[in-house]
Amino acid sequence: MVEEIFANEQFLSEPVGLYKPIDYTLRLGGKRIRPMMLLASGCMFGAEPEELHDAAIGIELFHNFTLLHDDLMDRSPLRRGQPTVYTKWDDNTAVLSGDTMFAMAWRCFLRINSPHSHAAMRCFCDTAIEVCEGQQKDMDFERMTMADGVGLGMYMEMIRQKTAVLLAASLEIGALLAGAQDEEVERIRNFGLHLGLAFQLQDDLLDGYGDTAVFGKKTGQDIRDNKKTYLPLLARTMCNNQQRDELDSLFSAKKNMDEEEKVRRVMAIYNTVGLRRAVDTTIAEEFSHAVECLDSVGAEEGRKRPLRDLVQTLFCRKK
Amino acid sequence: MVEEIFANEQFLSEPVGLYKPIDYTLRLGGKRIRPMMLLASGCMFGAEPEELHDAAIGIELFHNFTLLHDDLMDRSPLRRGQPTVYTKWDDNTAVLSGDTMFAMAWRCFLRINSPHSHAAMRCFCDTAIEVCEGQQKDMDFERMTMADGVGLGMYMEMIRQKTAVLLAASLEIGALLAGAQDEEVERIRNFGLHLGLAFQLQDDLLDGYGDTAVFGKKTGQDIRDNKKTYLPLLARTMCNNQQRDELDSLFSAKKNMDEEEKVRRVMAIYNTVGLRRAVDTTIAEEFSHAVECLDSVGAEEGRKRPLRDLVQTLFCRKK
Repeated sequence: MVEEIFANEQFLSEPVGLYKPIDYTLRLGGKRIRPMMLLASGCMFGAEPEELHDAAIGIELFHNFTLLHDDLMDRSPLRRGQPTVYTKWDDNTAVLSGDTMFAMAWRCFLRINSPHSHAAMRCFCDTAIEVCEGQQKDMDFERMTMADGVGLGMYMEMIRQKTAVLLAASLEIGALLAGAQDEEVERIRNFGLHLGLAFQLQDDLLDGYGDTAVFGKKTGQDIRDNKKTYLPLLARTMCNNQQRDELDSLFSAKKNMDEEEKVRRVMAIYNTVGLRRAVDTTIAEEFSHAVECLDSVGAEEGRKRPLRDLVQTLFCRKK
Repeated sequence: MVEEIFANEQFLSEPVGLYKPIDYTLRLGGKRIRPMMLLASGCMFGAEPEELHDAAIGIELFHNFTLLHDDLMDRSPLRRGQPTVYTKWDDNTAVLSGDTMFAMAWRCFLRINSPHSHAAMRCFCDTAIEVCEGQQKDMDFERMTMADGVGLGMYMEMIRQKTAVLLAASLEIGALLAGAQDEEVERIRNFGLHLGLAFQLQDDLLDGYGDTAVFGKKTGQDIRDNKKTYLPLLARTMCNNQQRDELDSLFSAKKNMDEEEKVRRVMAIYNTVGLRRAVDTTIAEEFSHAVECLDSVGAEEGRKRPLRDLVQTLFCRKK
């Protein structure tokens, strides 16, 4: 349904220098997980899919706007295996086409014909601001070292804002547009927050422990990049002093260090302290909290099916 | 009143890396002409100033967001005599703090408590998209030469979108929130479009013919920068073939040409064809159209006073 909605939507317009990169970004695909969740949540609470189309497109436009600007800020040359906008065009195009996508997302929300559209827009707006705050914290993080005191608490708050909040908002907006009651909206939002955290922690885990053949990329990239993800931050709390000093020094190593040796030494510490099992436990807990929230939602079991299936798919993902 | 509104508004928050540049930008001041126009228009149609505060702050937040991103894209080191955000901080800060300001502008609009808030937001959204399109056309322009066919029509459409539309929207939003009738909204919007064009053409004229002592900056900067403003584009239509070839070649000259000699030669052509008078006429016509629109508005003469005074101030401006 989501792919059909996007296939029917026209993103090209004049001037082409502005809209071509927008169309390119949106046609690259992606999992479309946010509009899917919005539709699944809205329909669970009794909305008709058509009432949710504009919000579903709006949320995906917003998500792609953040990717476009994040890739520029992080200087990521590839996204979904294709050149990012700032590499295919230039920095200015990435800035301005991104801005325009954000405005286009608002146009979608303003098209919603529902007595609940204002509540949906408030949720969208608060979320947009939190996502920006999360991205800023992520950039602040990059400049700090683990010895500086980057801790698990800061990290969890950062990924909550950068990733989980938008998944939660997608579900919340669906529920709001369906006219769900406040407590139900709160429940489905919390479901999204736990699912979002689990999803991000899985990403972190797969970087260290993914099966390269299935994962599709080389593991250990976060280690090579000195990225302070959940893995090293949790490992630090499980280390003795000597291991912690070694980990800190490996994660502040310059680029000229032998990279494979570095990955090997970091993984050795992870394995010694039993990190994989600890992270697996946290992820399973987040999934379990998510399922509890979904259980508590007052809707027919049959209507919960799509979200339960989504949880199952995400829980088992190997890439 | 506008200064008081801004003095009472809190823009600082966490993370400071995100909000400090926003607060800095908004405290730099500026003429606050858009919120002033919004208030003047709304009050003319009978709204209470307090009903307009959120929209007034929102429109100024949006304007400052566009300045922040435009300065980054145009690599302008100074704004209002102070370092721009990307120079004082860095490119990424300019991108992300700008994005956040745009979201904050929406939060202001969503705070509006009025049956007309939805109409105001639709106007704001359409305007935001037009401003982005105008900026893209401005950047496309930079890469074209006059001989490529950059013409007056394209230029007027570009400044309409980049400058006039936001002034018009400020007035329109004031009128909408006051519950003005459709025809009145249309009139005050057209007033803003003509005023905006007049304002931008004055900018172009002052660059060539401003009194340096009053203007506060060196004249001829657009000529040194090969900027295809209204002046050279109109001059081209008044030239003979030889003058046009000379003008085209001067406006595609490389940086190593003697700049003062270049300014002197361009101004000589302008003066020969009688450019100043022609531009003065166009500006006076736009002001006159603006006044006709304001005349046609169905409101008490006393309530039109602030906007009439604004026209007068702008008409006489020498900087």
